[in-house]
Amino acid sequence: MNTVKVGIAGLGRLGRVHAGNLAFRIPGAKLTAACSIVPEELLYAQKELGVQEVYSDFDTMLAEADIDAVAIVTTSGLHCSQIESALKAGKHVFTEKPLGVDPEECRIAEKAVEAHPDKVFFLGFMRRYDPSYRYAKEQIEKGVIGKPYLVKATGIDPEALVEGSIKFAPTSGGIYIDMASHDVDLMRWFLGSEAVEVYALGTTFKHPEFTECGDNETGCAIYQFANGAIGQLHVGRTAPHGYHIETEIVGTEGTLRISPVPEKNLAMIYNKHGAVTECVSGFPERFAEAYRLEMQEFIDCIREGRKPDITVYDGTRATEITFATARSLKNHSVERID
Amino acid sequence: MNTVKVGIAGLGRLGRVHAGNLAFRIPGAKLTAACSIVPEELLYAQKELGVQEVYSDFDTMLAEADIDAVAIVTTSGLHCSQIESALKAGKHVFTEKPLGVDPEECRIAEKAVEAHPDKVFFLGFMRRYDPSYRYAKEQIEKGVIGKPYLVKATGIDPEALVEGSIKFAPTSGGIYIDMASHDVDLMRWFLGSEAVEVYALGTTFKHPEFTECGDNETGCAIYQFANGAIGQLHVGRTAPHGYHIETEIVGTEGTLRISPVPEKNLAMIYNKHGAVTECVSGFPERFAEAYRLEMQEFIDCIREGRKPDITVYDGTRATEITFATARSLKNHSVERID
Amino acid sequence: MNTVKVGIAGLGRLGRVHAGNLAFRIPGAKLTAACSIVPEELLYAQKELGVQEVYSDFDTMLAEADIDAVAIVTTSGLHCSQIESALKAGKHVFTEKPLGVDPEECRIAEKAVEAHPDKVFFLGFMRRYDPSYRYAKEQIEKGVIGKPYLVKATGIDPEALVEGSIKFAPTSGGIYIDMASHDVDLMRWFLGSEAVEVYALGTTFKHPEFTECGDNETGCAIYQFANGAIGQLHVGRTAPHGYHIETEIVGTEGTLRISPVPEKNLAMIYNKHGAVTECVSGFPERFAEAYRLEMQEFIDCIREGRKPDITVYDGTRATEITFATARSLKNHSVERID
Amino acid sequence: MNTVKVGIAGLGRLGRVHAGNLAFRIPGAKLTAACSIVPEELLYAQKELGVQEVYSDFDTMLAEADIDAVAIVTTSGLHCSQIESALKAGKHVFTEKPLGVDPEECRIAEKAVEAHPDKVFFLGFMRRYDPSYRYAKEQIEKGVIGKPYLVKATGIDPEALVEGSIKFAPTSGGIYIDMASHDVDLMRWFLGSEAVEVYALGTTFKHPEFTECGDNETGCAIYQFANGAIGQLHVGRTAPHGYHIETEIVGTEGTLRISPVPEKNLAMIYNKHGAVTECVSGFPERFAEAYRLEMQEFIDCIREGRKPDITVYDGTRATEITFATARSLKNHSVERID
Repeated sequence: MNTVKVGIAGLGRLGRVHAGNLAFRIPGAKLTAACSIVPEELLYAQKELGVQEVYSDFDTMLAEADIDAVAIVTTSGLHCSQIESALKAGKHVFTEKPLGVDPEECRIAEKAVEAHPDKVFFLGFMRRYDPSYRYAKEQIEKGVIGKPYLVKATGIDPEALVEGSIKFAPTSGGIYIDMASHDVDLMRWFLGSEAVEVYALGTTFKHPEFTECGDNETGCAIYQFANGAIGQLHVGRTAPHGYHIETEIVGTEGTLRISPVPEKNLAMIYNKHGAVTECVSGFPERFAEAYRLEMQEFIDCIREGRKPDITVYDGTRATEITFATARSLKNHSVERID
Repeated sequence: MNTVKVGIAGLGRLGRVHAGNLAFRIPGAKLTAACSIVPEELLYAQKELGVQEVYSDFDTMLAEADIDAVAIVTTSGLHCSQIESALKAGKHVFTEKPLGVDPEECRIAEKAVEAHPDKVFFLGFMRRYDPSYRYAKEQIEKGVIGKPYLVKATGIDPEALVEGSIKFAPTSGGIYIDMASHDVDLMRWFLGSEAVEVYALGTTFKHPEFTECGDNETGCAIYQFANGAIGQLHVGRTAPHGYHIETEIVGTEGTLRISPVPEKNLAMIYNKHGAVTECVSGFPERFAEAYRLEMQEFIDCIREGRKPDITVYDGTRATEITFATARSLKNHSVERID
Repeated sequence: MNTVKVGIAGLGRLGRVHAGNLAFRIPGAKLTAACSIVPEELLYAQKELGVQEVYSDFDTMLAEADIDAVAIVTTSGLHCSQIESALKAGKHVFTEKPLGVDPEECRIAEKAVEAHPDKVFFLGFMRRYDPSYRYAKEQIEKGVIGKPYLVKATGIDPEALVEGSIKFAPTSGGIYIDMASHDVDLMRWFLGSEAVEVYALGTTFKHPEFTECGDNETGCAIYQFANGAIGQLHVGRTAPHGYHIETEIVGTEGTLRISPVPEKNLAMIYNKHGAVTECVSGFPERFAEAYRLEMQEFIDCIREGRKPDITVYDGTRATEITFATARSLKNHSVERID
Repeated sequence: MNTVKVGIAGLGRLGRVHAGNLAFRIPGAKLTAACSIVPEELLYAQKELGVQEVYSDFDTMLAEADIDAVAIVTTSGLHCSQIESALKAGKHVFTEKPLGVDPEECRIAEKAVEAHPDKVFFLGFMRRYDPSYRYAKEQIEKGVIGKPYLVKATGIDPEALVEGSIKFAPTSGGIYIDMASHDVDLMRWFLGSEAVEVYALGTTFKHPEFTECGDNETGCAIYQFANGAIGQLHVGRTAPHGYHIETEIVGTEGTLRISPVPEKNLAMIYNKHGAVTECVSGFPERFAEAYRLEMQEFIDCIREGRKPDITVYDGTRATEITFATARSLKNHSVERID
């Protein structure tokens, strides 16, 4: 099998995670091109990652670079149009979530993907590739917890990074659109059913800046699924202990809980405070392995002529759900999810 | 201070827990009388607990027994009228939860309590006396987690006892009225605010018997509190691992989680399954110490002329909330709680 | 069955634990007499525990008090002679550990016990009555971990109480005689075999006061048992997190570990330090229930004409082992235990 | 910096771990050659790893292959001579532990390393590169637990792999030489002092095959360190739950414990057994990241002209200690370690 040549678009915080993986840690892949509007980022790609071809324009990279695939890690508003262009240019596409900035835009991506059935389209819901989540899914498929009927999902960004959250809040679409897409994707994945209704609340107790821009610090929502199952969601931005991603899947024969203590590693300290486990600092630390594994799967799909389990419709669906959740919070009503 | 002479009404499963404590483990108390319509239970009181005076009728016990106080552990439908009679008869009153079978009935108890301000009235929300919950409350009052703004409460009865749950379901008032009162009381206690709105779902995946009688196996609800705080509730009846009571209080500076693993004791076994912690079997095991401590507090209140922190209004309020929750589930709507 | 009337000797820290249990929490027992050379302690017994008969002299209590049994919680050097006097006076005897201050003295107690086979003699190795240790023993007897062949025992006093340890060190007999008797008793109990050889080390890194009086802050020893099993011991006096008692029993089919985190209760706090579990402060907190249960067993043995599992020989044996351990440390050699 | 071209010798279980890392996951490295006496292994290197040059003879690889460095993952008896040959041939050397089969042989490696100060020599004590152990070391260096004075080390191979252990036992040198080198290296690393004396026991309760060949199933040893610190060791081969590597470092201000539950991942299951955490299956799973990180450090040292922290003398010292431990067990005596 040939090596897959990849061009990356976007080299911000998460872009560099993907670029580093593509450059060094993904058998079968070669990072040959990079695109960014930030000159320093291109310099970084050249010096640190050994990327030969760098571009300041996405379409130029598509037209000129020697690449089989692109990895889109740009700002969310560009995802759908770049997906469309790349597929038209005959490239396989990896894109970071969210698929699009609203459900309508997601249809553009859907159509582009449908128009290029020979290309691999990969959506970066990386949690599905995290070893613990993957293990949970396998156990569920083996019947270890019987039939799953409730998912309780918690996702809280660290207080240490709250300044960034506050800055980003006014343009984020609100806490649910900003933060809930991974959790609702996991609910759908684990429950094997579609969310049909949602009721959501929000609150702010620590940083009034969130209220001032119409957003919330914390959100709690409850989802009805088509098969009768239920989802409970808690998203927030002020975890004092670090980055807290916890998921529980309750089934008829058992319950699986993932990461109730978001431990940094396997060490525990006994000191004057008690028995203390330090927690992970953020998503790059918590999901480092998941980012690597999803990119490996993208490359393997291309090389083996396979399609990934996650589809473009999973991206649309997650967006529809987070939009309905935001609507419920705004309208103070139970909302249908279509 | 004199010893408080207590007569107990009801010697079922929980009645025997209280009777055993009063007979043997509560300094300052003496169990001198017992009342039951079940002759074997009275025999038990005489033989095992050394109770001298036994009665088959509650009012006769009130009239004739040498008692300062009564402990009401009868069927829920009798609580309010027995509270009223006992207070009228000049006795201090301990009553098991629920206060009454509906909010209206609770007013009867409220009036009786108000009419006898010199008597101690004690409502058995024993979780408030559990050492771990009490510790949590103290930490919160010390400011350890800042301002609490979210309580996530889970209460699941063991699958091992589901036959009893199924049998009791048709007359239980439904899962929320049956099971949620402790959890909503804890939410009010920890948040220091009143629940004003609720939205509730229910589902049944394992035992269709619950559906057949109009009940649910599992319930998930979300509460809006007056001060902006939120409550998330998960109640169920089919925990395969035992009796799972877990509560999390999220505050601006920290989070307190109580009993994520409902461990039976401090032992862990490493065996072919992995690292295994056996879980508690039911409420008598989990809350043995809480039952003792609340009864001690009842007796101490009497002896020291104090009133307990929990009031008759807490009982009414819990009933109002569980009724609103049941109404939300039935009406499939967001319900106000008055 | 009649109530057992008990006189207690010694009302220090641990004496008050036993006295409080006997006065209030042990069905079948009545604390009717107390003996102490400290007048305030006798006043305490009268005021707080309602004890009628108080004595400043042990033999006078034996001669005059209306008691069936005595609980000896005096200074270690008095145990053996008081055991002897009490048995001669026709009383059942509970005594705190250690049985005697050296193996020779233990023979005095053995002879006294042998001379009064109709009396209950009870030695306070309370850990055997702790619910977690009792559970471990039951699991082992059920075969859950197969054949046990290694016990790893850790016992560390809290740094918070180190001033007391330093003060007591010069007369304590050294860390092994002072601290290891519970651990070696547990090893014998769990392994069902006798220790035959020991090698011990000691070290002091934090408080030179221990070295100055010829003692050690920390001790680590290794035991060979007659059946081929092994014991590993770590005792210390400077745990910053609290009172750390941990025991692991390794068997052919599994391992049981008790209290790796000496948690204060079931609450965990997530705060800026991480996920934090507060630990127990000392033996009265950790073993409160064990102290109550062992005393209940003492009373039940008397009332039911039974003998306890722990015998006077267990006390001698523990003393022989701790003395051999101390000898090994002093002689820097492997020592036989006879 | 140029890419480092590496030839690997040995493609067994662990050899493939290193080869896979060198081929795909180590920026700056290229696996260009492989050497094995097993033809299938060379085929594997060509097909799966894309290695161009394959050899059945180590010296031929040294002479002919286009390599800057070699990774020696052959049988232990070959390590020292291959180290010597490779350094003489001007190659940088990574070698798996143990350094040599006995302390004398280790001197050969020492001399070879000393004779080639311009070459990087790297000894694969990979635990020092495990993120949890590395974190522990960093915390200790920051003073988080004060001065370390006791290391308690446990290393138990899984019962699931015991057939291999039994087969290998007769030629393994015994449990301590076979299994203890990582643990004694960690003790030295964490305590910053040298072991000067050891006393060791051994026992076999499950598989008599170990006794039959003069070996033991389980070993427990105690070490005296030059600075007064102590080491406790427990090695075994029959953990029913998986691969159990646990290390505790006790210091004057706190204790660090690494991996008391050798969890497979972050998931926990609540089922009829209780709360269950599945454990890791063996060293390739537990130390996957450590193997990658140590190889990265080897390559980085070459590229940056640095020397690694671990030296050839650490290898000799570990061998001397495990040999003294084996001697203590055999002689049933306290042994000096020179």
